[in-house]
Amino acid sequence: MALKLYGVPFSTCTSRVLGALYEKGLDFELVPVNLSVGEHKQPEFLAKNPFGVIPVLEDEDVNFFESRAVNHYVAHKYKDQGTDLIRHKNIKEAGLVGVWVEVESQTFNPAISPIIYQLYVKPLHGETPDHSVVEAAVEKLAKVLDVYEARLATSKYLAGDFFSLADLNHFPYTNYLMKTPHASVVNSRPHVKAWWEAISSRPALKKVADGMILSV
Amino acid sequence: MALKLYGVPFSTCTSRVLGALYEKGLDFELVPVNLSVGEHKQPEFLAKNPFGVIPVLEDEDVNFFESRAVNHYVAHKYKDQGTDLIRHKNIKEAGLVGVWVEVESQTFNPAISPIIYQLYVKPLHGETPDHSVVEAAVEKLAKVLDVYEARLATSKYLAGDFFSLADLNHFPYTNYLMKTPHASVVNSRPHVKAWWEAISSRPALKKVADGMILSV
Repeated sequence: MALKLYGVPFSTCTSRVLGALYEKGLDFELVPVNLSVGEHKQPEFLAKNPFGVIPVLEDEDVNFFESRAVNHYVAHKYKDQGTDLIRHKNIKEAGLVGVWVEVESQTFNPAISPIIYQLYVKPLHGETPDHSVVEAAVEKLAKVLDVYEARLATSKYLAGDFFSLADLNHFPYTNYLMKTPHASVVNSRPHVKAWWEAISSRPALKKVADGMILSV
Repeated sequence: MALKLYGVPFSTCTSRVLGALYEKGLDFELVPVNLSVGEHKQPEFLAKNPFGVIPVLEDEDVNFFESRAVNHYVAHKYKDQGTDLIRHKNIKEAGLVGVWVEVESQTFNPAISPIIYQLYVKPLHGETPDHSVVEAAVEKLAKVLDVYEARLATSKYLAGDFFSLADLNHFPYTNYLMKTPHASVVNSRPHVKAWWEAISSRPALKKVADGMILSV
């Protein structure tokens, strides 16, 4: 089997890549990384990703890391298989997928990730969430989603009337968010809510959700 | 003229896109955006980028924003013209370009951008730099560059023995950094220093540097 994914399904970044692999219908081996004993900081793992973070996708002789880069690689290499995630036949649509992939990375992710960190990750380490951090992040996320609401009033998905990597990359953090009381920031915006329902009902992403077992 | 770039050359994100346009040898019109009167927050600009930030690349009927997405669009659309920035003929090399583009975005940029913000942007607004923030960011950047140093001992550029978007995207922030006393974080690492010298001596990027007129 050529593709090996090093990671753990409850991690948002690993889940992001699982989403792309499932949408493409690819065979791969999931190799668990034991984070609790620091396996990702050991020489064997650092040889795959010198920054010591999951996930890593090993494709024969090459290791790819950074989940969004891995997803683009998978979408590009297997462009004619499964869901077309990068609109490879239309250069302007492909460009718009790229724009909204970057919006997720630069604008959405910095707003949502502190919420998930506080509510899911800190308790894992026996720490107490700082709710003032959560409130500030929710407020920031609300402003981002106001822009999404306007955008999604004009197209079904972020980059246009087609599901793409731009939507998929939002899945893991939003999936965790929707199990918290702050799901209201999505549900109170009708077009964002419809978009989330369209994404989260996809078989490939329901399968990703099954592995996301952290709880608040 | 088909391409219009809305932005200002002293902005790091506008400069990033200028770098790609110059490397490609493309004709384009630079349309200045008057940030001091908030032109980027006016309806006309928000129709191009609803997040109200520069730059925006207008290609006939479509507006592309987020500098890294714009650069990928330019590199992809004009793949056979000028410098090949995405190694479009080799899928694994293209994947590695993607990996190091993301490393810049997720790891390098969060470390270096507070330094430039404190030393260049705050004084523009009549504010005083917070040197404790600068010191912490330099320390963080040093750790990132330790990984770069090891990487650049095995290949001339980040994604391999070829200049690519991965290197180019680092240019604007590093160019400002090198005019500060913190240039030592680059100069003290021989392979990082050689990499920077190779990048910054490229005619296209020297042209970008000419427009980066902010001073410490």
